[in-house]
Amino acid sequence: MIRIGLFGCGNLGRGVAYAVRQNADMELTAVFSRRDPSTVTGFDAEIVHSSRVLEYKDKIDVMILCAGSATDLPELTPMLAEHFTVIDSFDTHATIPQHFAAVDKAAKAGGNLAMISVGWDPGLFSLNRLYAGCVLPDGKDYTFWGRGISQGHSNAIRRIPGVLDAKQYTVPVEAALERVRSGENPELTTREKHLRECYVVAEEGADLAAIEQAIVTMPNYFADYDTTVQFVSQEELNANHSGMPHGGSIIRTGRTGKNLEHTQVYEFKLTLDSNPEFTSSVLCAYARAAYRMKSRGVTGCKTVFDVAPVDMSAESYDSLLAHML
Amino acid sequence: MIRIGLFGCGNLGRGVAYAVRQNADMELTAVFSRRDPSTVTGFDAEIVHSSRVLEYKDKIDVMILCAGSATDLPELTPMLAEHFTVIDSFDTHATIPQHFAAVDKAAKAGGNLAMISVGWDPGLFSLNRLYAGCVLPDGKDYTFWGRGISQGHSNAIRRIPGVLDAKQYTVPVEAALERVRSGENPELTTREKHLRECYVVAEEGADLAAIEQAIVTMPNYFADYDTTVQFVSQEELNANHSGMPHGGSIIRTGRTGKNLEHTQVYEFKLTLDSNPEFTSSVLCAYARAAYRMKSRGVTGCKTVFDVAPVDMSAESYDSLLAHML
Repeated sequence: MIRIGLFGCGNLGRGVAYAVRQNADMELTAVFSRRDPSTVTGFDAEIVHSSRVLEYKDKIDVMILCAGSATDLPELTPMLAEHFTVIDSFDTHATIPQHFAAVDKAAKAGGNLAMISVGWDPGLFSLNRLYAGCVLPDGKDYTFWGRGISQGHSNAIRRIPGVLDAKQYTVPVEAALERVRSGENPELTTREKHLRECYVVAEEGADLAAIEQAIVTMPNYFADYDTTVQFVSQEELNANHSGMPHGGSIIRTGRTGKNLEHTQVYEFKLTLDSNPEFTSSVLCAYARAAYRMKSRGVTGCKTVFDVAPVDMSAESYDSLLAHML
Repeated sequence: MIRIGLFGCGNLGRGVAYAVRQNADMELTAVFSRRDPSTVTGFDAEIVHSSRVLEYKDKIDVMILCAGSATDLPELTPMLAEHFTVIDSFDTHATIPQHFAAVDKAAKAGGNLAMISVGWDPGLFSLNRLYAGCVLPDGKDYTFWGRGISQGHSNAIRRIPGVLDAKQYTVPVEAALERVRSGENPELTTREKHLRECYVVAEEGADLAAIEQAIVTMPNYFADYDTTVQFVSQEELNANHSGMPHGGSIIRTGRTGKNLEHTQVYEFKLTLDSNPEFTSSVLCAYARAAYRMKSRGVTGCKTVFDVAPVDMSAESYDSLLAHML
């Protein structure tokens, strides 16, 4: 059994706990929290205060870190990589190289393996960008996200005066997707690729027109998109928009042949009812790979690019050859 | 430069020659043919009779084998694996374990690396079956092929008395695809998943009704499908059906969550203008990986499951971290 430690107990951590139950070769040994352990419920494992984490050095095979990329993981992953085989879902694309360098140094100092940026984007989407680029060197990449909730955009709306709560859906423009899938190779503007749908709960008596104007003109977040704003009650928001769906498509249209006359379209698509649970499931599969790679003596920082697919599977190689290849 | 040898000069070999030109770190060193070399044209490389292949042991880094799976590769791949790093696109799913065993033995005896069953199915489809199964342990796989030409089915029609030529398209049933993508998890019969579209050139005066009847009732090939037969002239067949399009979708619908209440849909889809050229492009990307793995001392038979994605890429790791992850 691979003994999994879980650091963090939010939506992602809860998802990991469920995912571990779906993998017969894993067990959830302990959940580490910075909160008072007595207040953490709903986990089928020992709950331990984070200050005691080093006492578990020999009891955990892989520590899955479920914390935020903005401020938590940049500190947490290197700190724990010195003592454990760790895996995180660091998703701030712009600072991945810095995070990699810090984690690599710590993991090597401790003789451990640390896997970063595991999930779907970064993660499976990155893998498909790589595979598609390798098999179609002459081509063009497109990424579409959604339909799904963007936490960052929802939070941006919530900061507007008069707004009590909000959810924002990123929606790919179906016509743009079809143009890309047809192999037309279009140049698409930001506005042509995605719509933004906002569901907003306003304070009583708030100036709705002003709120809508503040949203649709917000630079970086909304100004470059066609954005719709719908005001709803808190009850309606809770009833209809409390899920965490997401997904998207990675498409590469490439050209092959004597005169590059043939179009080849590569698409990877996810349609997720639960974004955090899917990320958690990906983390578990890669935790298996991290465990095996560490067992073979691999150390330092690794990403999904370094993992041979066979290391993620619980099936025997013979079975993979016979049934999957 | 990775020095590529090409064994075989049919559609697939020609595709490899084009694909090598798209990879700046590769050069096509020699093309080996069992035909008289003076009759082989259209390649930008030395053409060598296959009987002289061993003279090139030190001149070739990776030998790409472009030959048939039915009778050629089972002999050819083990034979050449004793002397070269080789890669093939062996696609008889049922006998992959036997082929693997024979190639593994030969490659190990020669201290070489041999990669088998590289292409899209087996190949990228296999990879996606593996990834999808690992990240969604509770789920159901669906494979749809087409719209594309099936060589085997086209040949089966050509064997019917009175038939001069034929092309058969395997067509996925759009309604079935949509049911699967919705997460409904349907049980689908063979007939519900694919249609078969046949374009047939008949001899003058042939009994068209008898030919059509022979096609639609042919066991294994057509009897279990809704099959349409259209008689066309040879000119029309050549003009409209001489391409080699193919593709398809691997879909896994999985469940996650406390009570497996969330549906997660994973789809990988290819839409290919040219089936052989795409397979060739995949072979080239994996030839790079085979070269690198062999350089690190890896020997024996390997498949796409054993290849860390990073080994397929011509880009630096730093660049992958910064731009692809």
